[in-house]
Amino acid sequence: MALKTLAPQKAADLDKELMSEEGGFSIDQLMELAGLSVSQAVYKVHPPSKGKNILIACGPGNNGGDGLVCARHLHHYGYNPEIYYPKPTNAPIFTGLQRQLRHLHIPFLTTIEEYQSSLGKADLIIDSLFGFSFKPPVRAPFDTVLKAMIESKKPVLSVDIPSSWDVAAGPPEEGQLGHDFMPDYLISLTAAKPCVKFFKGKKHFMGGRFLSKDVAAKYGLDVPNYQGIDQVAEVDVGTPVEKL
Amino acid sequence: MALKTLAPQKAADLDKELMSEEGGFSIDQLMELAGLSVSQAVYKVHPPSKGKNILIACGPGNNGGDGLVCARHLHHYGYNPEIYYPKPTNAPIFTGLQRQLRHLHIPFLTTIEEYQSSLGKADLIIDSLFGFSFKPPVRAPFDTVLKAMIESKKPVLSVDIPSSWDVAAGPPEEGQLGHDFMPDYLISLTAAKPCVKFFKGKKHFMGGRFLSKDVAAKYGLDVPNYQGIDQVAEVDVGTPVEKL
Repeated sequence: MALKTLAPQKAADLDKELMSEEGGFSIDQLMELAGLSVSQAVYKVHPPSKGKNILIACGPGNNGGDGLVCARHLHHYGYNPEIYYPKPTNAPIFTGLQRQLRHLHIPFLTTIEEYQSSLGKADLIIDSLFGFSFKPPVRAPFDTVLKAMIESKKPVLSVDIPSSWDVAAGPPEEGQLGHDFMPDYLISLTAAKPCVKFFKGKKHFMGGRFLSKDVAAKYGLDVPNYQGIDQVAEVDVGTPVEKL
Repeated sequence: MALKTLAPQKAADLDKELMSEEGGFSIDQLMELAGLSVSQAVYKVHPPSKGKNILIACGPGNNGGDGLVCARHLHHYGYNPEIYYPKPTNAPIFTGLQRQLRHLHIPFLTTIEEYQSSLGKADLIIDSLFGFSFKPPVRAPFDTVLKAMIESKKPVLSVDIPSSWDVAAGPPEEGQLGHDFMPDYLISLTAAKPCVKFFKGKKHFMGGRFLSKDVAAKYGLDVPNYQGIDQVAEVDVGTPVEKL
């Protein structure tokens, strides 16, 4: 079965619909479930027995918030997450999530040097820099953050899209930052985005187990084939992507 | 190791602290995680293969909200939940949760007769009528709701405390509604309440995997021994309860 994807404008519409009065979701609920699904994907690809040092690079938007939620869950699973969040957002949900993490004594790295040192000892990196609303190019300071992440050659799990990729067109052109960025793992939130067809990593997960069949049908999506109580469903890498 | 419990006033203080600006949690996040943990307990004691009909009786407060969140997750796990929520609360989180469930076509039973008919076919009942802020006695219409639940002799999973029980003193006196109410399953949220020492059902779970070690220590609690990515931890029924 071909993988159905959601173009960026449609993904924004879907988020807006879920969070409308009619949809009934709050950003807190959706971000909690998104971050939880990321944490479960981490556990599947890299259980704590394989190494507990997880570095989470968070961008300024909701994708970064998913990373913050994920960090909380990873701590409770027994990992040692560290966070680099160079442009913290001031909205209540982001400040609240940061406070929760500080109570757990999760380190927030404050300089690029600390980030680079954390990269060196990380067992896995979570790329929660940019999501479906990203418009190239990657601007400072995230260019430096991403470049160091790629150069570290550590395993990376990207949240929603590989950061720097165009949501539709995929990796940037040769010579541009991110052209050679291929994360090992990708978790698509709510729906895969068109650029997934360029993903050639090891594993691809779907997350966000809250989509109703009605809303999925309205947006031309399939509800992923979740098993048991899992908040993530694996999709074979290389599954053909349905033309939009 | 003795089970540490939280008296009702302390439980209220803890909730308030978590949801303060300093604590950083929103009610949406805490209720999402509480309801998720209830849904995982349901899956453990009664996987869908044993029967999919789950009746969720929701009270007017946050305990009822936990039941609503649980219903959403159960639907996504493949159950057929039905909800009886005779006194819906008007705050945004409750109206939002109801809307989410209506989009999933989860039936809201509107009369006590419909509730009784649903009891007859239920494989498991979730008692999310009252939590730690309950003060006896059970008032109408919940007296009728609880009485029918007990008389159905169906397996019941109680959320936080068995409804009608005093949070500290346990089951009501002989002759009072709830005196003979012993749910098969109990899930204590964030911390067990003192009345847990009267619980003689089959399984007792802890839920709410967000408590920091610092806050647990401040309130004289232990962080439950969660395994893997589980949002619930089982505690042996009959574990001695530490004197407050």
